[in-house]
Amino acid sequence: MTIKILVTGGTFDKEYMELTGELIFKNTHVPEMLKLARCRTDIKIRTLMMIDSLEMTEYHRNSILEKCKNSKEDKIIITHGTDTMAKTAQYLGSQIKDKTIVLTGALVPYAFGSSDGLFNLGSALAFVQSLPNGVYIAMNGRYFSYENVRKNKATGEFEEIHYNDTE
Amino acid sequence: MTIKILVTGGTFDKEYMELTGELIFKNTHVPEMLKLARCRTDIKIRTLMMIDSLEMTEYHRNSILEKCKNSKEDKIIITHGTDTMAKTAQYLGSQIKDKTIVLTGALVPYAFGSSDGLFNLGSALAFVQSLPNGVYIAMNGRYFSYENVRKNKATGEFEEIHYNDTE
Amino acid sequence: MTIKILVTGGTFDKEYMELTGELIFKNTHVPEMLKLARCRTDIKIRTLMMIDSLEMTEYHRNSILEKCKNSKEDKIIITHGTDTMAKTAQYLGSQIKDKTIVLTGALVPYAFGSSDGLFNLGSALAFVQSLPNGVYIAMNGRYFSYENVRKNKATGEFEEIHYNDTE
Amino acid sequence: MTIKILVTGGTFDKEYMELTGELIFKNTHVPEMLKLARCRTDIKIRTLMMIDSLEMTEYHRNSILEKCKNSKEDKIIITHGTDTMAKTAQYLGSQIKDKTIVLTGALVPYAFGSSDGLFNLGSALAFVQSLPNGVYIAMNGRYFSYENVRKNKATGEFEEIHYNDTE
Repeated sequence: MTIKILVTGGTFDKEYMELTGELIFKNTHVPEMLKLARCRTDIKIRTLMMIDSLEMTEYHRNSILEKCKNSKEDKIIITHGTDTMAKTAQYLGSQIKDKTIVLTGALVPYAFGSSDGLFNLGSALAFVQSLPNGVYIAMNGRYFSYENVRKNKATGEFEEIHYNDTE
Repeated sequence: MTIKILVTGGTFDKEYMELTGELIFKNTHVPEMLKLARCRTDIKIRTLMMIDSLEMTEYHRNSILEKCKNSKEDKIIITHGTDTMAKTAQYLGSQIKDKTIVLTGALVPYAFGSSDGLFNLGSALAFVQSLPNGVYIAMNGRYFSYENVRKNKATGEFEEIHYNDTE
Repeated sequence: MTIKILVTGGTFDKEYMELTGELIFKNTHVPEMLKLARCRTDIKIRTLMMIDSLEMTEYHRNSILEKCKNSKEDKIIITHGTDTMAKTAQYLGSQIKDKTIVLTGALVPYAFGSSDGLFNLGSALAFVQSLPNGVYIAMNGRYFSYENVRKNKATGEFEEIHYNDTE
Repeated sequence: MTIKILVTGGTFDKEYMELTGELIFKNTHVPEMLKLARCRTDIKIRTLMMIDSLEMTEYHRNSILEKCKNSKEDKIIITHGTDTMAKTAQYLGSQIKDKTIVLTGALVPYAFGSSDGLFNLGSALAFVQSLPNGVYIAMNGRYFSYENVRKNKATGEFEEIHYNDTE
């Protein structure tokens, strides 16, 4: 069993650029994270883009969709900014039914001290191996189906959307 | 759904004692790890013991077994030293069939820089939510059934035991 | 002997604001840095402002100057953003001759993993105890007199200005 | 001006050996520490030994003495375990009068999260550039002359020895 990791950027992979004081993207940290984790699952990593998820357009989402559809592997992790992660999950979830796809990210860049990124990657890798086909978000130690998940902007946490009959 | 975490010690929770230069146990790091992870699953933590897994006796294993049996929660994570983790998994696995129990640990103490502990905790939390009843080890980004797992002492990695007919 | 530390902000003390993805100031990290360093010098810390040094005006510099002049302690460290650190050093150096004042900062926030801040603070504390009266910058493991120092914007390093007769 | 750094081991350079759970020596961390510090002083590093300072014998101390005497550089830093650092300082101090020699170390290994090593190295580098000839210990943000310094075993801190007439 091989797991594919598609990298799209997001806070997860941001770095501090010391000459300008800005947060930028260079290369993904996923390989060094897997090394630190002593991870021994068979993994293929592919960087699709390195962008803030607020900059993600229909074009980008379609590109991710195509990569997922065409992937030989049926277990796929997507690293993604948290701001529009739920939107991308819904986009993919409505069109892919025969693979297990888990989106994850981080609230604090992995390169900084106090990141949740390593925890989230461990959690995403476990969920992608054990959940049935479908598209999910793995954040905050939980998994959410693409159909009813959103980021709570006040707390930064992901939560289920509860639809009521009367709404 | 509530997840129970039973703490037993192991490398995971060791600290550097600066006055003596020894590695010791104080309190478990699990709560601060869950906080760093922004974890929002409902979790109860209970420290059963703080020992090296090489010092774990039949008495200790029986105590863990009783806590698992008597636990109201049917999803249980056990943090454990890696040296005898497989032995404890087998002990529990042969006697508990109606709960999902995941043992995990670390090769490097969480308190040190380059620990796999946060990754492993994320992975254990995900597996315990998604695997069917049974006893498992979550290490190296993988899960192993209690029935055929061992730590490879030369590499430090966990691996499946393959039984052959002719052996 | 008491050493006064005047905090003015700068990269040194920036933090990552996880809800917005911005770099912000909260409280100074100097006390926790001194604790980590097991520092046992007698130190008084006072936060004057928490600003980017690019935002530092004549008004701010005058406020720092007054605090230095009125300080009972004659050994003073000023934490400061690197962009205009040389300017503040010159401002202070031309007006204060009877104290040892050392400005320092960091290229990467202390709160992030790979910061030079702890090293620079150790270096500033040592220089302030051992250099004669004057105003200095302590960066890159060196000290520079206020009279001929600048930050090289291409490399991020501090360097001496060499004045030639013919210029 | 070139500064020589002589490495002798000590807690400073210890690492966690994940296969055995022991603290061991591999290579010194001084070069990566200087890189992190963006240090731009001219420095030559030489590893003399990699040992616990409790194992340091007359033979080892004599070897350090010879290296200091024969060093072309007259500013020398020695990284050293804290347990017998004062003893080595006295050994060197009674025999070398024409160089500035600063011994430093750490209470927690640099490779672990909460080390004082980077701070101490910054402090030692500053003291060696600014103190007059003599042999010193730089620890706890202070410097101590070789003649009256000891490690307080109860607190782990270095302190001056105060000699009374009546003792």
